[in-house]
Amino acid sequence: MYRIVQKFGGTSVADTQRIKEAAKKVAFEHSQGHQVVVVVSAMAGVTNKLIEFKNCVNNGLDASEYDVVLSSGEQTSAALMALALQNMGVRARSWLGWQIPIWTDNVHGKARITGIETDLLENQLKKNEIVVVAGFQGLTPDKRITTLGRGGSDLTAVALAGALQARQCDIFTDVEGIYTCDPRIVSSANKLDKITYEEMMEMSSLGAKVLQTRAVELAMNYNVRIQVRSAFIDSPGTYLVSEDEIVEQQIVSGISHNRDEAKVTLLKVSDRPGVAAGVFGPLAEASVNVDMIVQNVSEDGKTTDLTFTVGQADLNLAVEVLETRKDKIGFQKIVADAELVKISIVGVGMRSHPGVAQTMFNALAKKGINIKVISTSEIKVSVLIDEEYTELALKALHSAYGLDRDTDRIGSP
Amino acid sequence: MYRIVQKFGGTSVADTQRIKEAAKKVAFEHSQGHQVVVVVSAMAGVTNKLIEFKNCVNNGLDASEYDVVLSSGEQTSAALMALALQNMGVRARSWLGWQIPIWTDNVHGKARITGIETDLLENQLKKNEIVVVAGFQGLTPDKRITTLGRGGSDLTAVALAGALQARQCDIFTDVEGIYTCDPRIVSSANKLDKITYEEMMEMSSLGAKVLQTRAVELAMNYNVRIQVRSAFIDSPGTYLVSEDEIVEQQIVSGISHNRDEAKVTLLKVSDRPGVAAGVFGPLAEASVNVDMIVQNVSEDGKTTDLTFTVGQADLNLAVEVLETRKDKIGFQKIVADAELVKISIVGVGMRSHPGVAQTMFNALAKKGINIKVISTSEIKVSVLIDEEYTELALKALHSAYGLDRDTDRIGSP
Repeated sequence: MYRIVQKFGGTSVADTQRIKEAAKKVAFEHSQGHQVVVVVSAMAGVTNKLIEFKNCVNNGLDASEYDVVLSSGEQTSAALMALALQNMGVRARSWLGWQIPIWTDNVHGKARITGIETDLLENQLKKNEIVVVAGFQGLTPDKRITTLGRGGSDLTAVALAGALQARQCDIFTDVEGIYTCDPRIVSSANKLDKITYEEMMEMSSLGAKVLQTRAVELAMNYNVRIQVRSAFIDSPGTYLVSEDEIVEQQIVSGISHNRDEAKVTLLKVSDRPGVAAGVFGPLAEASVNVDMIVQNVSEDGKTTDLTFTVGQADLNLAVEVLETRKDKIGFQKIVADAELVKISIVGVGMRSHPGVAQTMFNALAKKGINIKVISTSEIKVSVLIDEEYTELALKALHSAYGLDRDTDRIGSP
Repeated sequence: MYRIVQKFGGTSVADTQRIKEAAKKVAFEHSQGHQVVVVVSAMAGVTNKLIEFKNCVNNGLDASEYDVVLSSGEQTSAALMALALQNMGVRARSWLGWQIPIWTDNVHGKARITGIETDLLENQLKKNEIVVVAGFQGLTPDKRITTLGRGGSDLTAVALAGALQARQCDIFTDVEGIYTCDPRIVSSANKLDKITYEEMMEMSSLGAKVLQTRAVELAMNYNVRIQVRSAFIDSPGTYLVSEDEIVEQQIVSGISHNRDEAKVTLLKVSDRPGVAAGVFGPLAEASVNVDMIVQNVSEDGKTTDLTFTVGQADLNLAVEVLETRKDKIGFQKIVADAELVKISIVGVGMRSHPGVAQTMFNALAKKGINIKVISTSEIKVSVLIDEEYTELALKALHSAYGLDRDTDRIGSP
């Protein structure tokens, strides 16, 4: 007997038929004598419908009421899942964020979990009841509903797995696992059996939309074993594990890309202490997530160009925030570009192998692809290129790092 | 400055455009310096969609999870109403049943309000904020969501008006007020300026679906002044008032009909003490609402026929409940009939005028309409007839009691 968290994303509970299919997987796990916690997203399409409603009545940004609207989607699917389980003769009950409660801060729309009360759920599990939890939602200390941001149900699942010390957290999704590259673009991409948290975190943050980055971060911190697997095909998925569980490390585990990247360049920013703070402080206040940041050494010692990237949805807001502070910050003009893609090679093996980035630059140069911005971390190299080269770049890199199917997967440098 | 509750039903918040129209009415009231509490139903169609979802995953009766599904409809419309108001520059915030809380018992699907905490709402009103409340929902002591039954948002509105001592509760609906008869059937029907709680209660319970019966009952008990008015046409509606506010009483104020009536007859029930209890006890336990009950004096002193009516939705359940107790109760067989309509004349003036029922029986006899069951109360006479005679009966009675437009409305006997 062990305790498991099963999370079903929007496509795996897209309609009542799929909810019933998902319920079968849950009931099977339960029939094996395990304690099961189920986390569900909203039925696919429901969230968009709710967003559309919201936009029709209000073009502004009251994230607090927005959360009340959005959270109703997961409320419905959680109750439907409980009903589907009951219909199979299994004891089950739905629990909403405020009922548990899953406490969060009050940053509506992107709230962070601050704590989870486990007494209620422990009680239900002890009674051999399946606990169905509405994903994506929490409660502030002043009793308002919050949502956890895009992909927030992953976070709910992992946080519950951690708080309830579950043996494993299965994330049921519409892909069979984590691939070395997007298989819709690179047909020779391979499914990975295991990937480290760190690699997955980089992959997630780079746009491999399988798992929310914060969920992976949380899983790593609380050592929650995650399996990403298909909701539709019954086969093993990809396990997220800590580095020491992976014996044979590849240098590059995967190549990811993110089209949701927009570049902002501030031309002729006055080059003095405090400028970066003057730029990124207001952006942070406006909840704009800044990704890559590049600042060139200034030639004249007086001005420099400052480039950074943000999600495309935040582009207008970012430009607006900076324009209103133009005089205070001191720059000549803003240049924005949204027709870009960020391509990244990720692998914990990089740490011990020099020259990994060089392979990337060579491969791209050979195809005549111009690199606009480069940024690196310990286990990742990212480049920003024109969006139209996405496929060309991915295929070239996948091959250059020996990730193609039926080739040597160890990829010695 | 006064305090007012405005309730918008499903058709008046059917889509985002109508929510915006409704918000204008709310904002107008608020702009006059009044304190406004808004109660909203789910957007028309949403509740049915949710019921459909529920039926697809579960054909059983777990009313507890059902309530979680259903209440999401009002959650969405309440938040959308708050957003629409904010978009007009008015301070507003949505409140769900559990946030206030509106306490109820744990009879899921048909819960009764046991208390309303007013501190939170009083605070918001003092801050000049519009309070938007999700109708139809409440909270049990063990933190589960309940719903208040069909038309439950009316109950929410009236209960809030009572608890918050509002001057008035406006019920915005798709009709202009209460009519002497259904104007879709009897074109000469008149809108009433005033009607007593008692009369309205009889009308509601008889199927005039404008206002929920329990809401009227509550309004009478707490002396809440209700105005039933159109959400689409800006004209005065019908006021629900206590009897002493109506100076010129008519004998019959209105004629209502209810097609949602099914008749159950138990043939040859053994005529001994305790039989009625043996029949209606189990039905009450199964939450079947029994309406009319008729028992004939037995001829032989041994057996009798017992007839009663239930809502059509409850018919199968009622028959099932009684069949399983056939031996215990002791009857020969059950005869059920759903092709019936109940027609009722209602008026507080009846109390002081004898012969009112006779006018009814004569009018129906003159048209050759056979009466199956008769039941009376102090201010009402109801008859059960074959459904196909609905229009014929209504028109004959409307005319017989002098309710036709441009005729003498006092209706002297």
